[in-house]
Amino acid sequence: MSTNQSEKRVTAGMLVVGDEILSGRTKDQNIGTVADFCAEMNIELCEARIVADEIEEIADAINAMRVKYTYIFTTGGIGPTHDDITADAVAHAFGVELNVDDHAIKMMQDRFADYPMNEGRLRMARIPEGGELIANTVSGAPGIHMENVFVMAGVPKIMQGMLNAIAPKLETGIEVFSASCDSQVGESSLSEPLAALQNAYPTVKIGSYPQMGLDKYMTQIVLRSSDEALLAEATQKVRDIIDAATLQKLKI
Amino acid sequence: MSTNQSEKRVTAGMLVVGDEILSGRTKDQNIGTVADFCAEMNIELCEARIVADEIEEIADAINAMRVKYTYIFTTGGIGPTHDDITADAVAHAFGVELNVDDHAIKMMQDRFADYPMNEGRLRMARIPEGGELIANTVSGAPGIHMENVFVMAGVPKIMQGMLNAIAPKLETGIEVFSASCDSQVGESSLSEPLAALQNAYPTVKIGSYPQMGLDKYMTQIVLRSSDEALLAEATQKVRDIIDAATLQKLKI
Repeated sequence: MSTNQSEKRVTAGMLVVGDEILSGRTKDQNIGTVADFCAEMNIELCEARIVADEIEEIADAINAMRVKYTYIFTTGGIGPTHDDITADAVAHAFGVELNVDDHAIKMMQDRFADYPMNEGRLRMARIPEGGELIANTVSGAPGIHMENVFVMAGVPKIMQGMLNAIAPKLETGIEVFSASCDSQVGESSLSEPLAALQNAYPTVKIGSYPQMGLDKYMTQIVLRSSDEALLAEATQKVRDIIDAATLQKLKI
Repeated sequence: MSTNQSEKRVTAGMLVVGDEILSGRTKDQNIGTVADFCAEMNIELCEARIVADEIEEIADAINAMRVKYTYIFTTGGIGPTHDDITADAVAHAFGVELNVDDHAIKMMQDRFADYPMNEGRLRMARIPEGGELIANTVSGAPGIHMENVFVMAGVPKIMQGMLNAIAPKLETGIEVFSASCDSQVGESSLSEPLAALQNAYPTVKIGSYPQMGLDKYMTQIVLRSSDEALLAEATQKVRDIIDAATLQKLKI
């Protein structure tokens, strides 16, 4: 997927727009998909937010994140009905006009023969001034690329198609390697040596994740670093820590 | 669950703390659970954020939301290891000290006989000054209730137990009724009359949700209002709109 592997940090924020997620009606799947996509592209997803269908809330979140991260990915709120207001909010956030775009109409009509442009469909063709279109191979109506903000549909299948469409446009970050070690010892028995190890290897991010209801392991330690040799070294030390704690547990 | 049904709006923000969600390693389940919990309690969940394991990021998100909403619910980052820093961030956000709390130790030891307090377990007993404990019937280590902020575990089963523990403490909002209508007509054919209906019924929130890959319906219209009579009236009008659009579609 990556076309221009760089040596620098590339970051992202995600914004999910949708009352239906906050009301519990719909369980979000898009954050997990975007998180996996970012990991694959070596883009560091730093933050995700879910906001209601309110123009000011959406615009505030876009403005808070677009100055902070390399990219913003939004999902939801670009359909044909009155509650689809993400395009309005993007125009508001950037302080530009929102007008019906002929290319967007063409894109929709190319997708479906006999596609009369009623009010709802025209609504989906409104693009903020300066915005580019993101192809939608599923249902025609485009996403929007506005500076560093990528506005995508909320329907997972359409969103995934749009992610594929924008991937070649994105800068990729420095490659991050990861390793994981499973432990049959609970986290609290590992915490002291792990904290010391984290201090000794500041460029290797060490995470500890308890697991319940699985026989496979009680704790999983995940290590991440862009330095493969340091990662291997720290991973071996995590294994030693787990071995020592396991031995200690058996003795008790 | 509700103990003190009120006639006012009760709002909430949610904060998920965890690198593992942003890296894609773990798919969050807690937002959906908290959304359902809030719906049941008539608490309006207005926003959710996911941030990385960084004290400043966590504290900033808590401070941004705790002045804006009635309640903040956080999940994750209260375990025994160095990457569990939510308690530190809460203390930082409130500008108070973080000390080991004897009641927290007792709560953990009450849960498990023979529970030596190693460094990791002591870490889980650190409570920001002024904070109260939230019972953890699963694994002993408490959550934290600090003013309007409820700090809970990230492990779904533990978090759910903590939600049950805090439910009686929470004020519940005005009851919101909902109704839904399924349509075999796409959203864009409904958008114009639905927008007019939304204008005519400003206190009934009308949402339109497209569905893909299901035979059951193409669009689901969801209506929400605290006024049951108005809701019934608007719902009947949505049914009329769907019927007219369906008839129109069959004619074509």
